[in-house]
Amino acid sequence: MQAAVHRLPAAAPDDVSTLLAAIGSGAIDPARIVAVLGKTEGNGCVNDFTRGFATRALKDAVAHASGRTYAEVSAAVAFVMSGGTEGGLAPHWLVFEARPAPPGDPAAGPRLAVGTAMTRPFLPEEVGRLPQVEATADAVRRAMRDASILAPADVHYVQVKCPLLTRARIAEAEARGRDVATGDTYESMGLSRGASALGVALALGEVPAAALPTDAVICHDFSLWSARASTSAGIELMENQVMVLGNSAAWRGDLAIGHAVMADALDVGAAAAALSSLGIGVAGQLGAAGRARVAAVLAKAEPSRSGLIRGRRHTMLDDSDINATRHARALVGGVLAGVFGDTELFVSGGAEHQGPDGGGPLAVIARQGRTGPQAA
Amino acid sequence: MQAAVHRLPAAAPDDVSTLLAAIGSGAIDPARIVAVLGKTEGNGCVNDFTRGFATRALKDAVAHASGRTYAEVSAAVAFVMSGGTEGGLAPHWLVFEARPAPPGDPAAGPRLAVGTAMTRPFLPEEVGRLPQVEATADAVRRAMRDASILAPADVHYVQVKCPLLTRARIAEAEARGRDVATGDTYESMGLSRGASALGVALALGEVPAAALPTDAVICHDFSLWSARASTSAGIELMENQVMVLGNSAAWRGDLAIGHAVMADALDVGAAAAALSSLGIGVAGQLGAAGRARVAAVLAKAEPSRSGLIRGRRHTMLDDSDINATRHARALVGGVLAGVFGDTELFVSGGAEHQGPDGGGPLAVIARQGRTGPQAA
Amino acid sequence: MQAAVHRLPAAAPDDVSTLLAAIGSGAIDPARIVAVLGKTEGNGCVNDFTRGFATRALKDAVAHASGRTYAEVSAAVAFVMSGGTEGGLAPHWLVFEARPAPPGDPAAGPRLAVGTAMTRPFLPEEVGRLPQVEATADAVRRAMRDASILAPADVHYVQVKCPLLTRARIAEAEARGRDVATGDTYESMGLSRGASALGVALALGEVPAAALPTDAVICHDFSLWSARASTSAGIELMENQVMVLGNSAAWRGDLAIGHAVMADALDVGAAAAALSSLGIGVAGQLGAAGRARVAAVLAKAEPSRSGLIRGRRHTMLDDSDINATRHARALVGGVLAGVFGDTELFVSGGAEHQGPDGGGPLAVIARQGRTGPQAA
Amino acid sequence: MQAAVHRLPAAAPDDVSTLLAAIGSGAIDPARIVAVLGKTEGNGCVNDFTRGFATRALKDAVAHASGRTYAEVSAAVAFVMSGGTEGGLAPHWLVFEARPAPPGDPAAGPRLAVGTAMTRPFLPEEVGRLPQVEATADAVRRAMRDASILAPADVHYVQVKCPLLTRARIAEAEARGRDVATGDTYESMGLSRGASALGVALALGEVPAAALPTDAVICHDFSLWSARASTSAGIELMENQVMVLGNSAAWRGDLAIGHAVMADALDVGAAAAALSSLGIGVAGQLGAAGRARVAAVLAKAEPSRSGLIRGRRHTMLDDSDINATRHARALVGGVLAGVFGDTELFVSGGAEHQGPDGGGPLAVIARQGRTGPQAA
Repeated sequence: MQAAVHRLPAAAPDDVSTLLAAIGSGAIDPARIVAVLGKTEGNGCVNDFTRGFATRALKDAVAHASGRTYAEVSAAVAFVMSGGTEGGLAPHWLVFEARPAPPGDPAAGPRLAVGTAMTRPFLPEEVGRLPQVEATADAVRRAMRDASILAPADVHYVQVKCPLLTRARIAEAEARGRDVATGDTYESMGLSRGASALGVALALGEVPAAALPTDAVICHDFSLWSARASTSAGIELMENQVMVLGNSAAWRGDLAIGHAVMADALDVGAAAAALSSLGIGVAGQLGAAGRARVAAVLAKAEPSRSGLIRGRRHTMLDDSDINATRHARALVGGVLAGVFGDTELFVSGGAEHQGPDGGGPLAVIARQGRTGPQAA
Repeated sequence: MQAAVHRLPAAAPDDVSTLLAAIGSGAIDPARIVAVLGKTEGNGCVNDFTRGFATRALKDAVAHASGRTYAEVSAAVAFVMSGGTEGGLAPHWLVFEARPAPPGDPAAGPRLAVGTAMTRPFLPEEVGRLPQVEATADAVRRAMRDASILAPADVHYVQVKCPLLTRARIAEAEARGRDVATGDTYESMGLSRGASALGVALALGEVPAAALPTDAVICHDFSLWSARASTSAGIELMENQVMVLGNSAAWRGDLAIGHAVMADALDVGAAAAALSSLGIGVAGQLGAAGRARVAAVLAKAEPSRSGLIRGRRHTMLDDSDINATRHARALVGGVLAGVFGDTELFVSGGAEHQGPDGGGPLAVIARQGRTGPQAA
Repeated sequence: MQAAVHRLPAAAPDDVSTLLAAIGSGAIDPARIVAVLGKTEGNGCVNDFTRGFATRALKDAVAHASGRTYAEVSAAVAFVMSGGTEGGLAPHWLVFEARPAPPGDPAAGPRLAVGTAMTRPFLPEEVGRLPQVEATADAVRRAMRDASILAPADVHYVQVKCPLLTRARIAEAEARGRDVATGDTYESMGLSRGASALGVALALGEVPAAALPTDAVICHDFSLWSARASTSAGIELMENQVMVLGNSAAWRGDLAIGHAVMADALDVGAAAAALSSLGIGVAGQLGAAGRARVAAVLAKAEPSRSGLIRGRRHTMLDDSDINATRHARALVGGVLAGVFGDTELFVSGGAEHQGPDGGGPLAVIARQGRTGPQAA
Repeated sequence: MQAAVHRLPAAAPDDVSTLLAAIGSGAIDPARIVAVLGKTEGNGCVNDFTRGFATRALKDAVAHASGRTYAEVSAAVAFVMSGGTEGGLAPHWLVFEARPAPPGDPAAGPRLAVGTAMTRPFLPEEVGRLPQVEATADAVRRAMRDASILAPADVHYVQVKCPLLTRARIAEAEARGRDVATGDTYESMGLSRGASALGVALALGEVPAAALPTDAVICHDFSLWSARASTSAGIELMENQVMVLGNSAAWRGDLAIGHAVMADALDVGAAAAALSSLGIGVAGQLGAAGRARVAAVLAKAEPSRSGLIRGRRHTMLDDSDINATRHARALVGGVLAGVFGDTELFVSGGAEHQGPDGGGPLAVIARQGRTGPQAA
């Protein structure tokens, strides 16, 4: 197999014209699409309907182009929308294809591999608790096998879409005599994201099982985190959907992926490290040649809970006009845009157990020459 | 004379504790303060009262510490507040002192020089028009003389505080049979900033007088701009207050100033150029030694009117929840924080005729060794 | 014919479950739907995508239920979404049906009549100018005929959906050597709404043709206004779509419509007058019996340009965190909710030439007994 | 004694010109001011600096006018600022004076009485817990005595300013081995307001002591509430400051106070009941004669936790662009402005244990003729 990644600009949440054009030109085979990640221009918070609007438009387009029903496409393709293009971030789609490699293509080294898996549907009382952690870890392992990725060290990015609690779900659990992790539906999003991230960390060996004795560590002990998880909660599912990106000798093509962890929001060194792992040097800002090799940039942003960035006060957490996660995306988007010389960056918020406080995972997918990615 | 610049964190708009501590320790002589620039945590737009709150608290503190009245301090010291600490920007004060140089201090090269001047009060019908341009240019020339800066090339930053129109002012002009540049009070802020910036450009030879034939160019022909102007409009004055920062052989001390123009919001090369002009190298992010030399960073931010950043769409101008200038400050603040490794940056918005579309002036004040600043 | 109006709650912008349930139960015949007005929960400003999301979901639902294509439904049914449920306003759909009256139903008096018409597509240089005014007036007259409404006095509400200018449209006009009313796309929305409202006023005799000598009166002379127009601008069309609601002896059923003009945002007397014209008395808050008769409430809200409400200052126009139209909808929504005892009110913003400064048209549709509506 | 209430418009948070004018004309004796309530135009949330700015300006003005120091005025006068003028609410000051009654003024009936008291400073671990409840109840009783109000039924409004927890305060308690009610500083505001409101309820007999067995009821059992408490949390104090307003036969003058409880946000009947208790009839909107008698309107607003208003969905709690309390003030402000025909209303948010879910206390102060207020 070989993976392709298409980064396509979007003029509006429901603008699928660039996708249709790429399908029309043959650049994309709609039947081979395995995932679409989208950066949409809503607020990225509770009442961000640009995510749902984009998902509907994208599913309609893929269904129509590939002669499948909306339900079939929904079941076969992962659609993960991240709202929020604060600062200068550019709305765009990242379309992932998994295609048969052309016969005779020699193995030039490990290449970008994509795998997906799903957990069973969770009961409301499992969301944000250890059963979600463990089932997610299991799904990550299965997605690795699906992608023919052998070692956890070859995984560089794990996207998880996870459920949240609604009033109805809480009521259903309580009617069965069960209590839930929280009665606050907004808080349930963070708990679900946090449990999912810890599931990734468990599968990748970043956090040992012994560090997860009880539910109480979830969204409390933030010293536990994954350097490669990116999780987001949505109302439309009760299971966890997992997409693993890594490098595998079983895959062909010209793409590879690397990652690093931003220690804080200003950690441009992490970007340089991720690029370096892919054989791309940067001093200051990436030049045109380097930019041409970058296929996608995926990062997490979160305001530091300390209220400080390198000892300086930030005002994100005290701003009642602009949600803190919006400030954080603007900041990390600006820092990374300075390095990559580009604003088409998939920077998303809500980073519970995903990187250290105020920092977060950063992954880069880039075109490779003959030698492929360096050891991380 | 010699100039001192103190960068002091602020925990709230009225937090003058760090200023009082610096006065208490003798680090600042309140009688020698010539200007205070403040980055406050309001929205930087119409209803940003953090600027007025900060000004009141700062004037009270300086008056009390120096045994002067509030009115005396208001007349003697320039207070310029810029609202908006979007992204990760840190609220802070920049306190400028002009002190007698210690006797015997040898001239090591041109050093940071500060000069101020004022125009006459404008009539409402002059605001945003050529009379404001010309009077500002004249004040810039006088402020240069006040600072003993001989050549326009030695000016690196000009801060102008300028008036705006109110309903009452418009009515007063109309009662005398005069028309004003605009009946929209908000729009008058942009016109006043624009006219003031063109005044700076005229004085510094960046725009020839022949390029300003009529009022109509103001806020229309944006190919005309100053690389060193930073202008802001306020309701509390009818004249233009001008502060010029440059380098002069007549000044002593260890500070010098350099500048560059950001061609767009991602122009990290401009930051490197400004630092380089001060003898400070940077590749990626400024290290601890470089950071220790930087005394202040002053930049302008504005969303590109094209709706694009290097060909990618931005959503700043279409966002009705967050004002475009707030997005722009967050973006430029993030880009520069990545370079300087610091969020205590004076990034302000409203950049009519101040740098090219989507870019803006950038000035750095830094401590020098023996040799002083390089030629720009 | 007879008209039916269904007021259906919406749990989200794409929630069509109540519509589908009403179709499923036979309460609504999807083939008879002539218009859907929607109050959606976006910001009602530029980047409000809830309107487009709702329109897509509603069209999909009606198309599927009535066995037509999306394009057929788009051509046959008017969909007008108004964003903004500030304060306590409840998201909802108003579904208008025009059905054959059951045979033998006696004429009990004039009843709610619905008519629609369309102008030709406008050229960009016509938008916001007299040609749009005149073509709109002509369409209103045709819609009246379509509804069998004989006299302008029997028209009580005219909904117009009108185009706006985009950069592309402006460029196309300029390429042909034409100038447009404004180069500011946001401003073009107001001009288009204003011209459309004046077209309604012209058709209904509220403003004489002589009062419209040149384009310059549009959005300038606000003493000219319609008491029955409600106009909104959208990007998806170049013509004006007109829906007229009035009372006609040619229609049957139990509904009638009345209107009044709110002189300012606090004018509860206007609500009482509109109700009284439909035979419903109110002192304080409408009781359960009155509420049961009300089928729909349609109102316009706009901040007063004077900055005052009955001599008291309001802060809507100076608030850079919340758009002024959002404050205005919240206020008028609160005032009317107090009278109607209900928050399911279609309160929309952007009221250029629609009622006096700070006030606006108010229409009520209510169930009638035998005698029908009183003379206005 | 006799009380005077002056309702003065404010053109900005620091606009004390109307206060100075009233002092200058002799209408207000600055030495007799006992409290100033202010409605300021900030967001009413965490980063609302208009409250602090207003307090500083008002204290400066009162100090200067009465020949006292800033500290003396701070100790002698209660300043309570409520941020948020959403919808059409008008920024204003309510200045309360307590003056000696002119000799010979006959007792015409119970008249507006003002009393104040303070609790001891609380330890951080007491905030939001029963010790705060009990100490507040005791202070309410003392303030009643101070006002010569004999019976709880004669109390109609109790304003409490209470502390909140900061990181420093929490750390101090923890260093002593004590735990605090919450580690979340924002949540501590709600707990402190809630405990204070329950203290009022306890003192007034609205909630029996037996209903408050443990700290756990605070901000959990919302069936417990006061119909007369209005509490707000501020960072600048550690004690509770209590102001009681009621009617007392020991006071003279022409003012009296009445109250009612809004059962929900649309409860215009409560406004009518409060007015009626003061001998003022209203049907629809208060007429000019009635308006002339109203000296102040004080109300609490809060979004209903059910997400519903009379069965209709509201979107306040899901809006990540506008804080829910801002929507609630806009709504209640609109409903009450419709009744009072006036937008100069002191509507404040944060109503834990202050009225039922989605409703809240409402007090009116009005000028009386000879007979004084009716029995409640």
